[in-house]
Amino acid sequence: MPTINAARLLEDLDQLRRFGEQASGVVRPAFSEADIQARHWLREQFKQAGLRSVIDGVGNVLGYSRNPGKAILIGSHADSQPTGGWLDGAMGVIYALEVARTLSESPAHRHLAVDIVALQDEESRFLGCLGSRSLCGTLDHQAEQDAVDKDGIRLIDAIKLAGLSDTPREQLDPKRYLGFLEAHIEQGPTLEAQAKRLGIVTDIVGVRGLKAIFRGQQNHAGTTMMSMRRDASTALYEFAYRINQRFAAEAAARSVWTMGRVKLIPNATSIIPGYAELDLQFRDAEESQLELFTSLAQQVREVMIKASSVDIELVEARSPIKPSRMSASLYQYLEQAAQAHAPDSWMHLPSGAFHDAGIMASLMPSAMLFIPSINGISHDFAEDSHKDDLVLGCQVMASAVAAMLVEHS
Amino acid sequence: MPTINAARLLEDLDQLRRFGEQASGVVRPAFSEADIQARHWLREQFKQAGLRSVIDGVGNVLGYSRNPGKAILIGSHADSQPTGGWLDGAMGVIYALEVARTLSESPAHRHLAVDIVALQDEESRFLGCLGSRSLCGTLDHQAEQDAVDKDGIRLIDAIKLAGLSDTPREQLDPKRYLGFLEAHIEQGPTLEAQAKRLGIVTDIVGVRGLKAIFRGQQNHAGTTMMSMRRDASTALYEFAYRINQRFAAEAAARSVWTMGRVKLIPNATSIIPGYAELDLQFRDAEESQLELFTSLAQQVREVMIKASSVDIELVEARSPIKPSRMSASLYQYLEQAAQAHAPDSWMHLPSGAFHDAGIMASLMPSAMLFIPSINGISHDFAEDSHKDDLVLGCQVMASAVAAMLVEHS
Repeated sequence: MPTINAARLLEDLDQLRRFGEQASGVVRPAFSEADIQARHWLREQFKQAGLRSVIDGVGNVLGYSRNPGKAILIGSHADSQPTGGWLDGAMGVIYALEVARTLSESPAHRHLAVDIVALQDEESRFLGCLGSRSLCGTLDHQAEQDAVDKDGIRLIDAIKLAGLSDTPREQLDPKRYLGFLEAHIEQGPTLEAQAKRLGIVTDIVGVRGLKAIFRGQQNHAGTTMMSMRRDASTALYEFAYRINQRFAAEAAARSVWTMGRVKLIPNATSIIPGYAELDLQFRDAEESQLELFTSLAQQVREVMIKASSVDIELVEARSPIKPSRMSASLYQYLEQAAQAHAPDSWMHLPSGAFHDAGIMASLMPSAMLFIPSINGISHDFAEDSHKDDLVLGCQVMASAVAAMLVEHS
Repeated sequence: MPTINAARLLEDLDQLRRFGEQASGVVRPAFSEADIQARHWLREQFKQAGLRSVIDGVGNVLGYSRNPGKAILIGSHADSQPTGGWLDGAMGVIYALEVARTLSESPAHRHLAVDIVALQDEESRFLGCLGSRSLCGTLDHQAEQDAVDKDGIRLIDAIKLAGLSDTPREQLDPKRYLGFLEAHIEQGPTLEAQAKRLGIVTDIVGVRGLKAIFRGQQNHAGTTMMSMRRDASTALYEFAYRINQRFAAEAAARSVWTMGRVKLIPNATSIIPGYAELDLQFRDAEESQLELFTSLAQQVREVMIKASSVDIELVEARSPIKPSRMSASLYQYLEQAAQAHAPDSWMHLPSGAFHDAGIMASLMPSAMLFIPSINGISHDFAEDSHKDDLVLGCQVMASAVAAMLVEHS
């Protein structure tokens, strides 16, 4: 088995962290200045690893092997949440780089074809999994034209600002690949709670997003009697409360839902808001549960509009993502490598977080490897993982990739 | 009776509107650049009217008459809501200026003492009725030190930026004054609905503000199971919903309450918020009703914290304002002038909006005159009043002031 260079891996993780570094975390949302700088740095690293390296028209950084034969694609996303952790996404990108370098330096493996990728906007600044959707040819043109971030900045303007408007967009040929492998921090407490060092993902939950829009009448909070009000915030609070009641009553064991973003206009203490927005996101491994939640939200709206002086509109806020199954014929190599390097310290688990591998799975067999998140924390400056887990995960990835490519060459 | 100069009145209203003008409204919150520029302009106008004119340490602009004898104080506030109308506050300031000028130009009245004032931050950017509280000597030192706006800017830093840190603060001597008169747009639909052109205010409702603070744990919206969550937003929605239920059940006829400002951190679709704030403001003409609402809010909190994984804190968000009664011996002059200039086109009414006159009433007899708001709209760019009502109101104010001062001189 080829052996990774642990010091180089940790050094490159630190290098990537510097783009957008803030306190112990990173602020590197898709198409921010820090993100674009990071992508140019990654392209250079991919090139120095001997790969044909490009940044494509949506900001994906790809490194293609020059070797013939069936290839494996490895990678994750390089963008972060608005206030994110240093490993989320970034770890899987640097793993891919280190695995490609490790195999190219091994006389027994340097003839094998490892492609690597740093994907764009997995974290939904504009459009979740923009990069993997684009590579798979499933990016909706209209959704792309309409996409704006929370401040109203348009995706197409962000692409222009990054100088990518006229840059070709890469597409993946599934015939080239045995499959896609993504490593990621778990972002949850399961591995730590079970005292396991590695997780092999069986399924990725589906995600849907609805936006509830409340239209009333802005007015003075002192002179407008309660009976005359059309208060958008009052309708929002009631809608959110009813959603929490109804969803809880009909949830499956691992269903989750979140209403983490609110906008009131004008959002002032002494003014009745005339307009409000609420984001409702929900996830489950079963498509039927996502359908049920969608219809429950519509029912809550219908009940409320009969009695409310506020108009309520419910729109699809993001492209829905179906639950997806990881490929057992692919992740068997992860199982074997995990058992070899960390006997009985690994487990199977579903992913409650969505990942680019869920998009890639529509194009080719895909699999994911998790390492533990300390205290299960992610999407926060406090996100971290133990150094020895970081090194172990990358070694398992390298061993699995080598075994898989050797077997198929 | 002295006659106002209607053209000059309307011209000066237009001049003041230009500070912070945006579309048909104004953006001139207390201590904004536009507000400070407006105050320097007002000081110059007060001076040209022959008054001893100062800007004091909190930004109040005062014009003192040089005449001996009992004086009347007239004025309102020159600051606006974040997105406010052009008349709210501004009208009462320009009325004061025009009344002072009109009397000074009238041989029969130029010996009378009219002081005028443009008060600061009535609209609560930092601390509601900052200016009138400071003039009355009831500004709480600690509240002033702690006051921040919704973006976290501190009042004391705003005062410093305006160059007022070392400027003396004026205080009013109640022995100098017969009373305080404030003219204002109604900001409600009552006068228009009753087809009246003038309103004489009998009472001003009291106002209390509470801030509910929700402390949970920020986490990933996909991997954190519902049973493990400490979601600050979920607690906020439930609190607001319960408040609306409980308050509605126990409201008096003219009670109003509003929760028009929300803050979630980090306010992102895919992140469980770890922190949330909700402003709860309520108003009534009876102190006992305000007490009842305060205790209901505490009860809602107590019921919720027994079952919630989120900490809920309830703090006083603003200095409470007691309901206040206007002085009948003062507003009789407004009644007489209204009847003279617009027979049977005036009425008595309570004010559902709070005003500086409610603060001034603690120091000296106070009274208010309202003119109609078109469609009852205020605190909005659409706020407006008919020109002939604007002129009539100022004339009534001038006649009332003249009659009152003549009678007491």
